[in-house]
Amino acid sequence: MLIRPEPAAAAPADGAPIVGMIGGGQLARMTAAAAEALGIGFRVLVPSADEPAAQVVRDTWIGSHLDPAAVGAFSSGCAVVTFDHEHVPADCLAAAAAAGAEVRPGPAALALAQDKAVMRQQLTALGHPCPRWTVLDGPARAGDFVAEVGWPIIVKTSRGGYDGRGVWRIDDPEALDALLAQELPSGACWVLEECVPFEQELCAQVARSPSGQAVAYPVVRTRQVDGMCAEVIAPAPYLPEALAMQAQQIALRIAGDLDVVGMLAVEMFQTGNELTVNELAMRPHNSGHWSIEGAVTSQFENHLRAVLDLPLGDPAPRAPAAVMVNIIGTDAEHLYSGYRHVLARDPQVKVHLYGKSVRPGRKLGHVTLLGLEPTQLLARAQHAAHYLSGMIDE
Amino acid sequence: MLIRPEPAAAAPADGAPIVGMIGGGQLARMTAAAAEALGIGFRVLVPSADEPAAQVVRDTWIGSHLDPAAVGAFSSGCAVVTFDHEHVPADCLAAAAAAGAEVRPGPAALALAQDKAVMRQQLTALGHPCPRWTVLDGPARAGDFVAEVGWPIIVKTSRGGYDGRGVWRIDDPEALDALLAQELPSGACWVLEECVPFEQELCAQVARSPSGQAVAYPVVRTRQVDGMCAEVIAPAPYLPEALAMQAQQIALRIAGDLDVVGMLAVEMFQTGNELTVNELAMRPHNSGHWSIEGAVTSQFENHLRAVLDLPLGDPAPRAPAAVMVNIIGTDAEHLYSGYRHVLARDPQVKVHLYGKSVRPGRKLGHVTLLGLEPTQLLARAQHAAHYLSGMIDE
Repeated sequence: MLIRPEPAAAAPADGAPIVGMIGGGQLARMTAAAAEALGIGFRVLVPSADEPAAQVVRDTWIGSHLDPAAVGAFSSGCAVVTFDHEHVPADCLAAAAAAGAEVRPGPAALALAQDKAVMRQQLTALGHPCPRWTVLDGPARAGDFVAEVGWPIIVKTSRGGYDGRGVWRIDDPEALDALLAQELPSGACWVLEECVPFEQELCAQVARSPSGQAVAYPVVRTRQVDGMCAEVIAPAPYLPEALAMQAQQIALRIAGDLDVVGMLAVEMFQTGNELTVNELAMRPHNSGHWSIEGAVTSQFENHLRAVLDLPLGDPAPRAPAAVMVNIIGTDAEHLYSGYRHVLARDPQVKVHLYGKSVRPGRKLGHVTLLGLEPTQLLARAQHAAHYLSGMIDE
Repeated sequence: MLIRPEPAAAAPADGAPIVGMIGGGQLARMTAAAAEALGIGFRVLVPSADEPAAQVVRDTWIGSHLDPAAVGAFSSGCAVVTFDHEHVPADCLAAAAAAGAEVRPGPAALALAQDKAVMRQQLTALGHPCPRWTVLDGPARAGDFVAEVGWPIIVKTSRGGYDGRGVWRIDDPEALDALLAQELPSGACWVLEECVPFEQELCAQVARSPSGQAVAYPVVRTRQVDGMCAEVIAPAPYLPEALAMQAQQIALRIAGDLDVVGMLAVEMFQTGNELTVNELAMRPHNSGHWSIEGAVTSQFENHLRAVLDLPLGDPAPRAPAAVMVNIIGTDAEHLYSGYRHVLARDPQVKVHLYGKSVRPGRKLGHVTLLGLEPTQLLARAQHAAHYLSGMIDE
């Protein structure tokens, strides 16, 4: 007799709680692994059964994060509800809370992560360094702003963007007019920002618990391609210690000021000795994937520990240098069929695939290497990631 | 609308295969995490839904590993079938093969791991160092053997034992008579062995692929309590390099001689410069749990890579020393409720809980620490494990 059992929504036998995560992408999939190790119950709410987390998590529920009834039913029995994306509306957060779950990060913090105009207003009001910015409330205002900061400018929709979607670099008035003629997502407005002439992009990640404990990960250097994270080096090479500390302090202060619970990623621009805040994410983040192998405590484990108000784990690195390169879909990927070549060529490479169907430009996985010196590590990780994605053939 | 979907038995979208593991204990649970990271499909056959792996693995099937029909149906669609224990009989292995799955390790190798008498005969025939041993075929023979090796002796049932069950240390003729009067498991015989006056117990783990590639992990020191692994130090402290290499070579030769595929653990006694083989296990093993954090490639990942005939990963340690202490059930465990104390006391400790209900003497989880020097690490890991298990209160 062979049975395919119904997925049981049981808490672990030893009294551990269930954490519910809304969203089923790779962040949820990697958080699941951390929950399994800690023996914490883990449940995901996904839009479809082929999502990365839905393929592996026993306690998977299919439903919409925009449907308060679904979110409420999903949340019942969860000690905490948290998120692998920022797009859960307030009525659904209220439904989770009404079902008895703690919502972490809380609705007030999430509102900032959901709306780049509100985020800029708050960060500016709190004195955190931002690029010059404005919210567009008429065409004349756009001209005034450009006159002040010069071309090019960065234009964003305040809501609904991710991985470079909803962000444009605009070089002239015609392109700006064409963009602003497009329809905005519901509830969104246009945000205009100066184009910061940065030397490098950094990301400072912190974990913060409801009781106020916080830990800061090493500040990393990120390289974006088409607005999407392509590579991360941890810690950021050649970053003066004082600037690294300043970046960590900015992230810790933002986490405290905004009452963030869980992981917070603060993407920053470095220009000389100046740091300015680009984006915030209140969840595990692509710039922290290196921490799975590279830190004593991964960002996924610390996110869980933070939202459960458990003491946080040590974010210290396990090696002098770690690099992470994303595997991004092309028309001619190798993925699993590339394992034989990539794993034989470099027995130290750590490959993570998310189980996604291939689409050009889609994040399908990532590669991590630890060692002494980032330049060589980066070349090795790029080879593995680019071979698996089909960007190179040998 | 909210749906609890049927667990889909789908292979990953990118062409990765499904590995089926028979058995659903902590070894399957930890192998699942390695499969998730690699993007490999992973399916478990478990006797009940509350098994450690069944709680977390999406593609869980409930059935008996003793039922050829169940094993055959489970195996259909799997590229490879492998094991988290050695107790699958030959007709079930044949059913898996008939369903189109590669069975790894293969039936001939598994037969040795299932029967300690056959294992001793084979190892002795191949010239691998064993304690003096005999198979009992009459009471007079027991007397002859004791006359040769002296008291105490070790008595084992050839089949059906694990974690110290089926193994006794016997000090006198009365105790021997009483033991031998007990009924043997079906198909088993009594195996008598000399009691080796060892200085320490070691374990050498290797991974071996069907194509013959093999890698050897650092040789570890294990400490057993009541026949069950309690603590592991990797690498074994104060072990002369030549002896460590000899232990690795013994394990590599046994893997080759017996055509093992996957992980092989060779438990050994060290007495001066002498090594003797105690037990074999052809699967991930408790003495390799440190490798999750402590090695470039964990034993669970290398088991998967080996059974899939993928190139093996680097088994090198990530730190000068790693220690692992098991969390073993008592009458008064803290487990999850102990997290607050244990995690606050030591932010570097890595706790793994298996989701098991508590029974005295049951392996419920383990704790790992990496660092420079094993003595201090061991004291810290013991504190965490013993607090969580309820052996200590502060």
